[in-house]
Amino acid sequence: MELLFLGTNAGVPTLQRNVTSVALRLFEERRSFWLFDCGEATQHQILRSSLKLSKLEKIFITHLHGDHLFGLPGLLASRNNQGGTSPLTVYGPRGIKEFLDTTMRLSQSRVDYVLEVVEHDGGIIFEDKGFIVESQLLEHRIDSYGYRVTEKDRIGSLNLPLLESHGIRPGPMYGKLKSGESIELENGTIIRPEDVLGQPKKGRIITILGDTRPCPAVVTLAKGADMLVHEATFLHEMVETAYEYYHSTATQAANAAQDAQAKRLVLTHFSSRYKDLEQLGQLLDEAKEIFPNTMLAEEFHILPIERIQ
Amino acid sequence: MELLFLGTNAGVPTLQRNVTSVALRLFEERRSFWLFDCGEATQHQILRSSLKLSKLEKIFITHLHGDHLFGLPGLLASRNNQGGTSPLTVYGPRGIKEFLDTTMRLSQSRVDYVLEVVEHDGGIIFEDKGFIVESQLLEHRIDSYGYRVTEKDRIGSLNLPLLESHGIRPGPMYGKLKSGESIELENGTIIRPEDVLGQPKKGRIITILGDTRPCPAVVTLAKGADMLVHEATFLHEMVETAYEYYHSTATQAANAAQDAQAKRLVLTHFSSRYKDLEQLGQLLDEAKEIFPNTMLAEEFHILPIERIQ
Repeated sequence: MELLFLGTNAGVPTLQRNVTSVALRLFEERRSFWLFDCGEATQHQILRSSLKLSKLEKIFITHLHGDHLFGLPGLLASRNNQGGTSPLTVYGPRGIKEFLDTTMRLSQSRVDYVLEVVEHDGGIIFEDKGFIVESQLLEHRIDSYGYRVTEKDRIGSLNLPLLESHGIRPGPMYGKLKSGESIELENGTIIRPEDVLGQPKKGRIITILGDTRPCPAVVTLAKGADMLVHEATFLHEMVETAYEYYHSTATQAANAAQDAQAKRLVLTHFSSRYKDLEQLGQLLDEAKEIFPNTMLAEEFHILPIERIQ
Repeated sequence: MELLFLGTNAGVPTLQRNVTSVALRLFEERRSFWLFDCGEATQHQILRSSLKLSKLEKIFITHLHGDHLFGLPGLLASRNNQGGTSPLTVYGPRGIKEFLDTTMRLSQSRVDYVLEVVEHDGGIIFEDKGFIVESQLLEHRIDSYGYRVTEKDRIGSLNLPLLESHGIRPGPMYGKLKSGESIELENGTIIRPEDVLGQPKKGRIITILGDTRPCPAVVTLAKGADMLVHEATFLHEMVETAYEYYHSTATQAANAAQDAQAKRLVLTHFSSRYKDLEQLGQLLDEAKEIFPNTMLAEEFHILPIERIQ
């Protein structure tokens, strides 16, 4: 489970940074990756990364501003072209269906895989045995949502040497034990799951937000998260501009991380005025004064998400 | 007057080439440039070029397939952001209005400059004192148009030393002479335009086509053109595939250039299967056998358009 930032700039692309998109790599967990937002040229960024569009399983759009959205039709069409055959679901605010229906229809874009588009107003928007994704409305000029991805706790690993010592080889018995059933060996011995399973693995929580002013929903979504991805469009010296444009400052992002008792904060969505690492460093320094475990999103950098106690 | 190719690949972007867009630089002629097609990430390509979005005056869309269109909303929004205040007109087939209305409305994209969107079915779609743009339907899976840009013949240059010898200085008299009026000096001498104007300059013709199978409209649009930009998606060994997908081969592009008695042919819109210069060279060689004055479109290369006798 890793994050891979594909675009970290606010509003417009620059020569250094693309508009917003971040991939959540889930290859170990579900042999796929998810995408959060899809600014123009996200498919181009994916070409330059280790990701393959055929492995894309879900796309979560935070809001319909162009710098988070305009790469979507092209990416969906190219996925078809690049051998993507598995189903894909797009989640987003109301309007996402009309956007995709219109752009795909007028361009006669063909998609042979099953494409589902889900409009939501927040709440639990996806759940299966491995993950639950919740969403809540933030405070932006347009409806903008944050997503909280919770990995469900997983059972511990099987003690393979112990199983082998009982003569149990990989196969259906492993599955039974993992699903919580006891098994009886031919010699009458009963093996209980708790005898051969290690400590359960606590699931991780990752919160990825859309553009927002500071608001209570940020803290709710980020509560106890192992990683919080929060916009930091401006330095706090521009807090009035941030308010006017419905954005956050680095200080405000750090305050939210602290209020939520998040474990780690990643800043992204930087105004074009912050061009180089020195200028971005000011955003980082500002946030670290309040929330030391902060880092800057860097495009193409793969950031492992660890369970932090 | 120069061409600057921003995207030369068919269908999808690759690491080497972007999807279709070509700029017609008219800085000497009208202090602006025009764009033909606007595939995704055209604005990103423009960032990497010498072009400034604020100088963009007109966009001509050949057809609504995504690889020629999906960069349009983002480019229009970014132009606003980058200080583009002069009016901009987008010309395209029916459907372009709905595409732009929907994408700009749902994304709440703000454009403060005057944006006019003109849907056309071919014919003369633009004319002023300097240029005339004609369009005709080609033969593609979706309505696809070609554009013929004719620069009007211009009057010759004023003979400045001669004017000075008569004591005529730069000012309104220059304008009168240029617009064909004679002027009378204080000493009674009559100066006629033909006395002080050099040879008229013959205008150039450039034809830029959308995706197409070979068809009579190609030849009509390219008749006598100084430069013909023609798709060459495939080598002629794939002529059946080309027909099936409503595209042309390099041979067919060359035949069209020859039939039209064009002066120069530029091949573009290459299938992703032709990756490197060696493979593209096969397309070039194939066309040159029929039409020697052929070249390949290269991204970011600036190609002057010369009047060829």
